[in-house]
Amino acid sequence: MLCLGLDPDPKRFPSCLAGKPQAILEFCQTIADATADLVCAFKPQFAYFASQGAEAQLEKLIAHLKTKYPNIPVILDAKRGDIGSTAEHYALEAFERYGADAVTVNPYMGKDSIEPYLQHAGKGVIILCRTSNPGGSDLQNLHVGNNGALFEKVAQLAKEWDQSGQIALVVGATYPQEIAKVRSIVGDMPLLIPGIGAQGGDIEATVMAGAISKRPGIGMMINSSRAILYASSGDDYVSAARGVAQETRNALRTAQEKLK
Amino acid sequence: MLCLGLDPDPKRFPSCLAGKPQAILEFCQTIADATADLVCAFKPQFAYFASQGAEAQLEKLIAHLKTKYPNIPVILDAKRGDIGSTAEHYALEAFERYGADAVTVNPYMGKDSIEPYLQHAGKGVIILCRTSNPGGSDLQNLHVGNNGALFEKVAQLAKEWDQSGQIALVVGATYPQEIAKVRSIVGDMPLLIPGIGAQGGDIEATVMAGAISKRPGIGMMINSSRAILYASSGDDYVSAARGVAQETRNALRTAQEKLK
Repeated sequence: MLCLGLDPDPKRFPSCLAGKPQAILEFCQTIADATADLVCAFKPQFAYFASQGAEAQLEKLIAHLKTKYPNIPVILDAKRGDIGSTAEHYALEAFERYGADAVTVNPYMGKDSIEPYLQHAGKGVIILCRTSNPGGSDLQNLHVGNNGALFEKVAQLAKEWDQSGQIALVVGATYPQEIAKVRSIVGDMPLLIPGIGAQGGDIEATVMAGAISKRPGIGMMINSSRAILYASSGDDYVSAARGVAQETRNALRTAQEKLK
Repeated sequence: MLCLGLDPDPKRFPSCLAGKPQAILEFCQTIADATADLVCAFKPQFAYFASQGAEAQLEKLIAHLKTKYPNIPVILDAKRGDIGSTAEHYALEAFERYGADAVTVNPYMGKDSIEPYLQHAGKGVIILCRTSNPGGSDLQNLHVGNNGALFEKVAQLAKEWDQSGQIALVVGATYPQEIAKVRSIVGDMPLLIPGIGAQGGDIEATVMAGAISKRPGIGMMINSSRAILYASSGDDYVSAARGVAQETRNALRTAQEKLK
């Protein structure tokens, strides 16, 4: 169930990477290689590459991951959201240029801002529903008529839009009772759940809330980024990252066992 | 009031640009240079550069525009939206890497997803409020308690968040009565209004609806992209683009005169 978030921030890199022109690629690749047997997905965060002008390293990273681990999906976390003709270009970027298996998107602009991604058969579209940040409540928790909160309405729309099994939802681990609400709306749709690790979400409560009844541990990708990536600021960063990834995976398994 | 949207789609370029390695840059730059005396802002659309792997051309384009037209703001239309620590990286990308004066952002993730941009003094943050696409209604028109529709709530929040005069709103020209509602909420906050031209919004109704009372023609950036860029598919594309930009600017002026 563990998804490895790849948020490479050069300011937090160990000194052994200092000054290397491909430091971002090396940092992500070494940690991904050391944890691949523990994860169900890799999730590079686009902003960290974009702010460094490191698109070429992102291309290389995804190419490496897809070659070496063809069965582990790569989610490009770019949170795109734009009108149809423009969304087509973002879909090309994510799926053809970068070769990602799925991309995160923002629902604020509605159905026609989501559809161009769905045209890419076999690719995943992961829609923001309830996000793990404090400001997530500003809009997402507003009550919209008889539909409950806005995030519940988004879950209903996502279920309605999902004619081909390509849609998943982002629901933050910081609100387990809301994960449970979303799960009750969307049936067995997969959930990408950020917010454990550095953001403090409770692993056991999250696994309990997100589980599909009778299929414990299926349908959730629970993301940890910074807690794993920056487990050590020293030159032992790879083994430290593996250590935290293993602990997290074990904690997820323990929680999953309790479901059975 | 005219904002030139730069959405470079190589499939629609004239044959004289075919095969040129910097065709995207040349296409945008020649049209921008030919229309600079007619526009109040340039708005490169990030997706069109990203899908082509043309970030370097986007950097050069903005550097050219800021050198040659230091008084015309450049809006990076990227519709970013992410949690605080990640939004900081998007802010660095827009303002430091690309040197844009403003960036469009998505409000779905709330206040802390907007604040990192506001930390960059003097830079503009243009929040999606009511978008011009058909699916815009899916979420934005939902009624949220006593606050009217969701887009009205976003306008209220934007006004509340704007302590430093850095915030503007995106409101589509396809819904003039909604522009008027937003204007009544936000006072003299600037509005970026897409949807005229190829998207079919009515210029006169838009200018009437968006005007700040007693200050006709102030506080609106009315965007046209494709109608200008692709005015001709031939090698006369630059003069054709200028022709349409001039007609559009004139239509905006005529509408503005009626306000007086």
